[in-house]
Amino acid sequence: MCEKHPLNKTLLNIKEQSPLVHNITNYVVMNNTANALLAIGASPVMAHALEEVEDMVSIAAALVINMGTLSEKWVDAMLLAAKRAKALGKPIVFDPVGVGASQFRTETAQKIIQAATPTVIRGNASEIMALAQMANSTKGVDSAHASQDAIAAAQQLSNTLANTIVISGATDYIISGAQISEVSEGSPMMAKVTGMGCTATAIIGACLGVEADAHMAACAAMQIMGLTGQAAAELSLGPGSFQMNFLDQLFQLQDKA
Amino acid sequence: MCEKHPLNKTLLNIKEQSPLVHNITNYVVMNNTANALLAIGASPVMAHALEEVEDMVSIAAALVINMGTLSEKWVDAMLLAAKRAKALGKPIVFDPVGVGASQFRTETAQKIIQAATPTVIRGNASEIMALAQMANSTKGVDSAHASQDAIAAAQQLSNTLANTIVISGATDYIISGAQISEVSEGSPMMAKVTGMGCTATAIIGACLGVEADAHMAACAAMQIMGLTGQAAAELSLGPGSFQMNFLDQLFQLQDKA
Amino acid sequence: MCEKHPLNKTLLNIKEQSPLVHNITNYVVMNNTANALLAIGASPVMAHALEEVEDMVSIAAALVINMGTLSEKWVDAMLLAAKRAKALGKPIVFDPVGVGASQFRTETAQKIIQAATPTVIRGNASEIMALAQMANSTKGVDSAHASQDAIAAAQQLSNTLANTIVISGATDYIISGAQISEVSEGSPMMAKVTGMGCTATAIIGACLGVEADAHMAACAAMQIMGLTGQAAAELSLGPGSFQMNFLDQLFQLQDKA
Repeated sequence: MCEKHPLNKTLLNIKEQSPLVHNITNYVVMNNTANALLAIGASPVMAHALEEVEDMVSIAAALVINMGTLSEKWVDAMLLAAKRAKALGKPIVFDPVGVGASQFRTETAQKIIQAATPTVIRGNASEIMALAQMANSTKGVDSAHASQDAIAAAQQLSNTLANTIVISGATDYIISGAQISEVSEGSPMMAKVTGMGCTATAIIGACLGVEADAHMAACAAMQIMGLTGQAAAELSLGPGSFQMNFLDQLFQLQDKA
Repeated sequence: MCEKHPLNKTLLNIKEQSPLVHNITNYVVMNNTANALLAIGASPVMAHALEEVEDMVSIAAALVINMGTLSEKWVDAMLLAAKRAKALGKPIVFDPVGVGASQFRTETAQKIIQAATPTVIRGNASEIMALAQMANSTKGVDSAHASQDAIAAAQQLSNTLANTIVISGATDYIISGAQISEVSEGSPMMAKVTGMGCTATAIIGACLGVEADAHMAACAAMQIMGLTGQAAAELSLGPGSFQMNFLDQLFQLQDKA
Repeated sequence: MCEKHPLNKTLLNIKEQSPLVHNITNYVVMNNTANALLAIGASPVMAHALEEVEDMVSIAAALVINMGTLSEKWVDAMLLAAKRAKALGKPIVFDPVGVGASQFRTETAQKIIQAATPTVIRGNASEIMALAQMANSTKGVDSAHASQDAIAAAQQLSNTLANTIVISGATDYIISGAQISEVSEGSPMMAKVTGMGCTATAIIGACLGVEADAHMAACAAMQIMGLTGQAAAELSLGPGSFQMNFLDQLFQLQDKA
C-alpha cells in the first residue's frame, strides 16, 4: 500500500512550487495532459523542436517523454532532451505507448532508455512486458494483460535499470527493486477515455518535480489518479461527463491540499 | 432508408470484437475520434510514421485516412499505409477534408484514391462535389452546399471507383452505385462542433472492421452518428455540453447493444 | 474602457459573414480554438503545409499565427503565410507563446514580426515584455508578471510597429500607440485551463475578419472572452466544467447578437 501522508505533502508542494513540467508527448493527449497539470497546480510546457528542447529542459523541474505518436524528428528531440535532463540531474518519466506494437516503437523505447535511464517508467501491463522482452507483441495501445501479469517483468526491468516502474491497471503497481506498492482506487471508466495513462505519466512528472524520492512521487501520482478517477466516475454518465468531472475533481483535490 | 437491424448487429460486433482501428488523421480531432472509438467499444491507434504505418495496418481491422491537416511526410505515410491495407485486403475509409480548398489537397486526394481505392469515402457536399470534379472550389473545410446537391456527383464517383460514397449533411446519403440509403436523424448542433464529420469517418472505420458489406457498415455508422447527435442535442445548451453528451450517449448506445 | 456598442456590432457581423479564419497554431489548442471560432459563428481552417498556406490565406478573412509548439517547417509556413497575407492586405494576429523561454522562440517571434508586421499581437505580460526586450526571461508559457507591468513595454512595441498590442491578464489592456483600452471582465479560472490565451487570439482573428479598425476588433474580442469567461466561471465547479460552459456561453452570446 502507498501511504496517504506523502500524497498530501506532494499535493501541497505542487500547489506552492508550481513546478514547470516539460512534455514531449503525443498529439492525441496534449490538451488533456496540459489541463491535468494546470488543475493540479503545476505549469505545463509542450516543446519538441530540436532547437529548443535543451533550453526548455533547463528551466523545467521534470521532463515527460511519451511516444504515443512518434516520428523521426520527435525521437531525435526526445533523445536530446533526455540526455540534457540527465546531465542536469533532472528527473525523467517515460511513457512507452504501444511499445511492442511496431518495430519502430520497440527500437525507439530502447534508444530512449539507453540515452538516459528514466527515473520512472509508466505503462500498462502489455507495454511493461514488451519492454522487459517477456512479451513480444502488443495489440495497439490498449493492454491485453491484467496489471498483475507484469509484476515479474517490472521487477526485472527495475532491477536492470535501478529505477521505478509503474504498471497501470485495475490495480496499479509501483515497483522499485524489491519494494512494491499498490494503488487500488480508480474506475473502469478510466479505460474508456483516451490518454488517462498519459495523464498519469504527466502527473508523475509533476510529483517528481517536487519530490526527490521517485517511489514516493510515483505512489502519490497514482493515488491522485485513482482517487480522482473514482470520484469522477461516481458523478458521470459516460466518458464525456467523466472527462469533465475528472478535471473538476483534480482541481478540487489540489484545492483541498 | 437504412435498416435498423444491421445497426444493432454492428454495434454488438464492435462491442464483442473491439476492432483495432488505425487512424492517420488530423491534429484537430485526434482526441475526439479516439474517444468516440473507445466509447463505441473499438480500440483506436494513431500512428503516422513511415517507419511504422505498415506494421500498424497489419494488426488493424480497418484503416482511417483523414487529410485535415496535411504535410508532405504525412501524405507519404497515408500512401504507404493505404497500399499496405489494400495488399492485405483491409478496408479503408477516406475523409478528403477541405478537398478543393487548395491545390495541395486536391492533388493529395487524387494520389490517395489512385494508390488504393478507398472502401468508403465520406465528405460533406462540397468535398464530394470537388472530388467528382463537378465543383472547383471549396470554402475552407465547412460545406457551402446542401447534401442533396452532391448526390449526382457521389453516384458518378461511386460508379467510377466501384465503392461506397457517404455525403454528410442534414440528411446523410450513403451511395453504392445505384443503391442509395438515407439517414435523416441528427441535429444542427453537429455543425457547431469541430470534427463531427471526422468522427463519422472514424466510426465508419470501426463498422468496416466488423462488417464486410461496406454499404451496410456505412449505414450503421451514419445511424450511430445521427441517433447519438440527436439524443445529445436534446440534452445540451450549446456546443460545449453537446460534446460531453455526445460521448456519453455514444457510450450508452454501445452499452444497450 | 472598451465601448459595448462595437461588441454587439462585431458579434452580429461574425454571425452574418461567418469569416474564414486561417490558423497556423499549436497542437495543444487546435481543437479548442476551432470550437471557439465555430461557437462564435466564424469558420475555422487549420492548415500548415508550405504547399498550401498561400492558397488558404487567399480565401481567408484573417490569419492567426500562434507559435505554441514550434518546429522548423512550421516556422517556414508561418513566414510564408504572413508575407502572403500582408501582400493581400489581410489582417494578421500573432500570439508569441512562450517568447523568451528559449532562444528559438525569441528568434522566431522576431522573424515573424519582421516578415510582416502583425495587425495585432496578443500575449501575457511576460511575453509582451520579452518581445519589447524589457524582460529577458520567461518561465515557460505562463506569465510571471501582472498585466499592468507590461503597459510601458506594450506602448513601446505598439509605437515601433504601428500596430495594436493586447496584454492578457486579470485586466486586459488593448494598446494602439497612445490609445489604451481596458477589459476587466473575466475569471481566475481562465488561467486554470490551457489555451484560453490562444482562444483569445483566435477570436481576435474572427473580429479582424469583419472589423477594419484593429483596436476596436481587439476590444470586442477581449470583451467576448471576458464576458464569456465570467459567465462560464459562475456555472462551473472546476476547469472541466468551465471548458464546457465556456463554449456553451460563447455560443449563446453569439446567438443573442
